[in-house]
Formats: sequence, C-alpha cells, structure tokens
Amino acid sequence: MKTLKLIPILFCFSSLSQNQDSISLKKIYDYYLTKSKCYANLNYLTSKIGGRLSGSPQAEKAVYWAKKAMYEAGADTVILQPCMVPHWVRGKKEVCKLNSYALKINKNLNCVALGNCIATGPKGLNATVIEVSSFDDLEKLGEKNIKGKIVFYNVFFNQTHIETGSAYGETVKYRSKGASYAAKYGAVGAIVRSMTSVADDEPHTGNMNYDTSISKIKIPSLAISFLAANQLSEFLKKDNNLQLYIETHCQTLPNAPSFNVIGQITGTDKPNEFILAGGHLDSWDNGQGAHDDGTGVVQSIEILSVYKLLGIKPKHSIRAVAFMNEENGLAGGEAYAKNAKEKNEIHLAALETDAGGFTPRGFGVDTINGLYNLVSKWKNLFAPYFVERIEKGGGGADLMALEKLNVPCIGFEPDTQRYFDIHHTAQDTFDKVNKRELELGAAAIGSLIYLLDKYR
Amino acid sequence: MKTLKLIPILFCFSSLSQNQDSISLKKIYDYYLTKSKCYANLNYLTSKIGGRLSGSPQAEKAVYWAKKAMYEAGADTVILQPCMVPHWVRGKKEVCKLNSYALKINKNLNCVALGNCIATGPKGLNATVIEVSSFDDLEKLGEKNIKGKIVFYNVFFNQTHIETGSAYGETVKYRSKGASYAAKYGAVGAIVRSMTSVADDEPHTGNMNYDTSISKIKIPSLAISFLAANQLSEFLKKDNNLQLYIETHCQTLPNAPSFNVIGQITGTDKPNEFILAGGHLDSWDNGQGAHDDGTGVVQSIEILSVYKLLGIKPKHSIRAVAFMNEENGLAGGEAYAKNAKEKNEIHLAALETDAGGFTPRGFGVDTINGLYNLVSKWKNLFAPYFVERIEKGGGGADLMALEKLNVPCIGFEPDTQRYFDIHHTAQDTFDKVNKRELELGAAAIGSLIYLLDKYR
Repeated sequence: MKTLKLIPILFCFSSLSQNQDSISLKKIYDYYLTKSKCYANLNYLTSKIGGRLSGSPQAEKAVYWAKKAMYEAGADTVILQPCMVPHWVRGKKEVCKLNSYALKINKNLNCVALGNCIATGPKGLNATVIEVSSFDDLEKLGEKNIKGKIVFYNVFFNQTHIETGSAYGETVKYRSKGASYAAKYGAVGAIVRSMTSVADDEPHTGNMNYDTSISKIKIPSLAISFLAANQLSEFLKKDNNLQLYIETHCQTLPNAPSFNVIGQITGTDKPNEFILAGGHLDSWDNGQGAHDDGTGVVQSIEILSVYKLLGIKPKHSIRAVAFMNEENGLAGGEAYAKNAKEKNEIHLAALETDAGGFTPRGFGVDTINGLYNLVSKWKNLFAPYFVERIEKGGGGADLMALEKLNVPCIGFEPDTQRYFDIHHTAQDTFDKVNKRELELGAAAIGSLIYLLDKYR
Repeated sequence: MKTLKLIPILFCFSSLSQNQDSISLKKIYDYYLTKSKCYANLNYLTSKIGGRLSGSPQAEKAVYWAKKAMYEAGADTVILQPCMVPHWVRGKKEVCKLNSYALKINKNLNCVALGNCIATGPKGLNATVIEVSSFDDLEKLGEKNIKGKIVFYNVFFNQTHIETGSAYGETVKYRSKGASYAAKYGAVGAIVRSMTSVADDEPHTGNMNYDTSISKIKIPSLAISFLAANQLSEFLKKDNNLQLYIETHCQTLPNAPSFNVIGQITGTDKPNEFILAGGHLDSWDNGQGAHDDGTGVVQSIEILSVYKLLGIKPKHSIRAVAFMNEENGLAGGEAYAKNAKEKNEIHLAALETDAGGFTPRGFGVDTINGLYNLVSKWKNLFAPYFVERIEKGGGGADLMALEKLNVPCIGFEPDTQRYFDIHHTAQDTFDKVNKRELELGAAAIGSLIYLLDKYR
C-alpha cells in the first residue's frame, strides 16, 4: 500500500516539474526563433571574416570576434586559451590536367590540394594514372603496376546509407591515408574522388596525413570533383596511358600560436563544475566555413544568452567553447582537455555541434555517468520541437580528448542530407544556411544545456 | 498456461512478419536511393515543361508527360480523367510603384498579382495606402478611413511556430479574402505581405477569391515581397499620404478542358479496391513548380515502380494520381471523387504529397476505418529511415472531396523549414530540390503504400 500511495505523488511531482520545464523550453525556443543573434553572428563570421584555417590571419580575427560575441551574449568571463597549431598554406591555385594523346584531349579537371599535403612545386608532376576502388585493389596490383604512377581512388559514397555521415566514414580513409598507401607501392601522386553524393564540379578538400608507419615517402595529394572523377574514369577506359599533370604550391610553415575561445557564465552553486557546448572556429580556406563549423560556433555562443533571457544564473559554470584547429590537427581540443585536467575542472557534460546548421533531429549521448539515462527522460520535452532522436553515443572530434578523461559527451545531430553537398568546398557559404534551421538547432542545444544545469 | 503458450507464438509470428517487412523496406529504400527516376523526372517536368498553371499549354504538356512517365514506371493502365479547370492568365508583368512627394521617392516594389484577381488595365490605379495587421483593424477603421484607398495587409509569419505551415495557415486568409474584405469598406485595391519567413525581395503569389458574401465588388490584389513590405511600412510612417500605383493585366478566360492523370497497376485479388498516392500536376506560372508540387508528382509516380522491383503484383489496385488544378480551383480532386463515387470504387487509403520534396519526417493519418491504428504499428519499420512521426489527421487539398466520401487519407509530412522560402515564387526551381531528400520521401511513400496493400 505504501508503494501504491507513493506512485501518484511522484507522478504529480514529476509532471509538475515537466510542466515547468515545458514552459521554460517554450520561452527558450520563442527567444531563439525571434531574437537570437545566431544568424547575424554567422553572417559576420562567414561574410566578413571568411575562411579561417589554423594559423591564418582570418583565424586570428575570428578569435577576437568570438571573444566579443561571447561577452555580448552574456559571458561574465572570456578566456583565450593558448594552443600551438599547424600552419599549412595552400599557396597558388592547384592544377590537375588530363592529357591524352590517343584521344586528343587536353583538359583541366577541377581540383583542390588536400590539407597538409606537400607541393609539387612550379614544375609540377606528370605521370600515368592507375584507378583503384579500395586499398585491397592497391595491394593486389602491387609495386609493379603502381610504381611511378598517380593512384586515383575512385570510391563513391554509398547512397544506401540513410545518414550521409556513414558514407563519409567509409570513404574518408582514402583522403586521409591514400597518399601514404600509394607511396608504399611507389606511386608519385594520389588523387581522390571528392567525398560527396552530388554530381557537380566542386572539389572537396579536407585533411590528409603522411603516416610514416605506412610509408616514409611523401607524395602530393589532390581531390577532384565528382564530375571530374567520372570523366577521368571514363577516359581511362579508352586510354590507360593518359597522363595527368598536377601542380600544387602548398607549404607547411612552423607551428603558430593560436587560441580556443571560452565564454563562461560562472555557476552560483558549483563554479568549478562545468557544462559546455562547443563548435570549432577554424575552417577550410576555400569556402567561408558556414556549415563547417560557423553554425556550430554561433549556436554554442548562443547558449550564454539563455540565462539573461530567463533572468536566472546557472548552478554550474556554463561554457561556450570555440575550439581552434579541428580541421587539421585537433590542437584546440587537446589543449582544452589538458588544461581541464591540470586544473581539476569537473566536466558534467560536454556537447559538440559540428554537423551543420540544419534542422535538428536529436542528440547522441554518452552512457558515461548515467548521462544517456538522464537525457532520455526529456524526450517528451523535446517532442513538440521535432527533436525526436535521443541515441547512445556522442561527442565530436574536439571532445575526443575530454572523453578520454571520462567526460560524458553529447553530439548534436541535425538532418544530414545536405551536409556533404558543400562540405569543405567553396560552396560552404552563408547563403547555404537557412535561418530557421540554424535557430532551431540553437534552441535545441540551449534547451538541453539549460536542463543539464538544472538536473545534473 | 494456454495464454502463456500463445504469447510467444504470436510474438514470433509478429516479429517474423516484421522482419520480412524490414527486408522489403530495405529493398525499396535501396532502390529509391540508387535507381529511382524521381530526380530525372522532376528535372524534365520543371526544366523542360516549367510552370504549368491550369489551362496553360504547359499544363497540357505535363498531362502527356505524366502519362508516359507512369507507363514507364510500371502502370498497366493510364487514365486521362477529364475535368474543366479555371483558366486565369497573368498577362504582362505587374507593376507596384511607390510615390512620395514629401519624401521625394519614386520606387518600384517587387510584386506579383494574385491568382484569380482582376486587372487594373493599362491605365493602372493610383491611390493612397492604409496599413492594417488584421481584419479586426479593418473593421475598426471602417469605411471613412478606407474608402478610395489601397489596403495593405502587413502581417508577418509567426516565427514561434515550429512548423511553418502553421504560420501560413494563420496568414493565408489575408491573401485569399483580403480583397473582398477591403472592398467591403470601399477600398480600391488590396496588397498583401508575401507569405514567408525569409527577408528577401521575392514576391509570393497564390490564389485569391472574390467572396460575394463579403462584397460584390472586385478589386485588384497583389502580393509584394517581404523587403518591399518592410519598405512600404517604413515609408508610410514618414508619409501617410504616399501613393501607390498598381497595374495588372490578368484575365480570366472561359474554363478549359484538362485532365487528372491516373496510373494504375491493377490488383490481383481485389481490382476494384484502390490505394492511391497523389500530388498535383499544375503549378503557379511564375516559377517551375518544383517543390510545389513537381516533387509530389514524381514521388507518386514512383510508387508504381516498387512492384516491378519486388517482382510482385499488388493485391489491390494501386494508383499514382497527378491531380490537376490544386492551385486555383481543386477541379481535379473533385472530379476524381465524383468519378469514384459514380463507379462505386472502394478506396482503402489515399495519400497526398504536397508539402515539398524535403527530408521526410512522418505521416499524418486519418483515424477513419482504423487506418491510424494500422499505420502506427509500423513505426518501428520506419524508424531506421528517420521517419518518426505517425500523427493523427491526414490528407491534402486534392483529397478533400474523397475524404468527404469517408476515404481515410494520409498526408506525407516532410521537414517544413524551407518550404515557404520559395513557395509560389520564381525561386521554386529544380535546383532547390536535393536529390536524396526527394528520394527519401519517395521511398517512405513507396514503403507505406506497399505495407497498406499487404495489410489492408
């Protein structure tokens, strides 16, 4: 009988608090959809500052812009947290030219050098091409078929995956490790089909690494557009002696000093316990870094405005973090975690938004310290906002170092269909971001951080 | 004990059949994401045929194109079902010019005449303007303040709605009935802020009606762009004597003969019981009618290809319907229902896709004849495809007449955030449609029709 009496009381309490939370979430959403500065902030970051690769003058400008924007959003403290970042520069525009004597074709292919790759220098590089569709192909062909050639990784996105990130996850290894595997068998260059579903002529850059455990030799590496890859493959069928001329002018300069930007509202009860939302401030140089990850940065900054809006102070310290160097090094994420460890900062939860500013679908949440169970309870609160998926597994690249310290992490999950259409291209620009989609994402994240502070 | 034994058997049966359905849905999705003709069909309909208002030569072309596309998708029969449609033509480009002597301003405002409205003729119309934000405002102002003026309905989309359709639902009455209400108080023209969230310079057309129960007088009616509405409102604050010059050249010609296009795969067991999916073939004349509703038409046609793919015949007759005249009359929907009634056709379910070719979110399903309960059981089948919302209430404008005959209807519900950015504008073009989003919608609809045929 005791149990039976307890149930309705607990139920009442629970529904009362859910009702109060519903009212708070409605306030938060109304604010984000009518008054938030997300979109204006994104406009400034992308249109006025533009592409901002680590070490660039634009990345430095972005640091000081983020500091100002965080104070304006309501931070009581903004910390510039130092980190040393790689400093790779693209230099003069790349060239990839197809020459077939047999077919009487001489044609430029739209291309972009991969981040961290070496230059051919002004004399360029001429070689025949061998097309492969996997690392297994390479191994089977062996040195006798590959030596002295340019390896062309012609691997399509698997369209049957519902989430485009799964297709990216399968193919990105050809971008990141393709040059080292090709060099292992004596290739002189590596070319990769752009990581996208869209049959257009935009080349997609991204980072590559020379993995000395695979090969000690560094060779130039480029991505060519989807349509250029189709053409190259078609021409190779007709003339497997065709030559490619590639020319890159990239340089790796000495590491440069830079910063994570941390905007904080200090907690009233537990100032040394932290809840953070972050995105990355750096971006590739060939676009404006709008969806990757300007949207994540402005959404993270916007969590600070919730407390002013609701007229409350958070119990724990709330941090918006603009991480530096996600694209080509993760120096910012690592510096943040190192610092947190040294200062014995307790992180109750850390969220990353780095999947584009599209309509929110849900959150991926770590099971560490019961975080997934807690967030799952709020499913009904998010349902009116069409944020429907609370899944296990969370975080993002900038949070990997924190996750190793057992910090429970969360990944914001927007709709993924359009992300890889423009990812790492010249088309990742402000006009590709829909204001309401961006704001709905900000509202979902702001609401989650609010609930985490209240119930954690 | 009997019950205890039965449960696992039932469970096994149910999970076995769910498992078979999972396999079928995976096949259907794989097909739609790799081989479907949706996107190519849409390209033809929008880029080659273009805007296709009822009665236009383009609408006629679209009819014969749809017939061909339906046969190609696997229809055994294609019926051209006659209907008489309104035939309104826009004529020469509209003009809306703001003249302020006091402010020394003489400026064109981007505008578009509303469908069904009358012409000013070549002499145009000059009048001062009165701005209102509701029909209540009009009533309060009364004839003494309105007579001889142009009424400007300056009503914004309510941004706090999560679904943009709710904002549209609240404001569309100013477009459809605004002229008649304004005429009631002696106005000579009516202008409406475009129905959109986006602060751009595109005017959004749409249908209007002269409601003789409100006023017998017909006055010209235009929509102006979001930014033009902002400007007009600002200038009115500084000079409430400013004049607008409006000029429209529209004409309502005699009703014209046209057709619904019905592609059928005749059922093996119950050929006189029908399950249909439809969109509308007509569109506004100022764009290409891509999201409204080219996407719905090509998604509907694509349901026919499922049966070829799976190598089965449906038990019931499956129909893809390209309805005519949704935009300005609903003649097609009414003709379909009238015909169905006359022939005693039994419709087990009817689905409409007319909310854009965006990422699918779910279905709105009528409770009539237990349809909602049935579809709800398939929630788990759709979850891997992120089709998460099975809600009560369904249908679409073309199905209203069928619904009156007690046919249970379903509305396909894609993400709504971008729909009203381009709805009824010159920007509703093929390039605004994402191939995968379109195909995911087609797959969701194709899967649902497959399950309905199997279990209905």
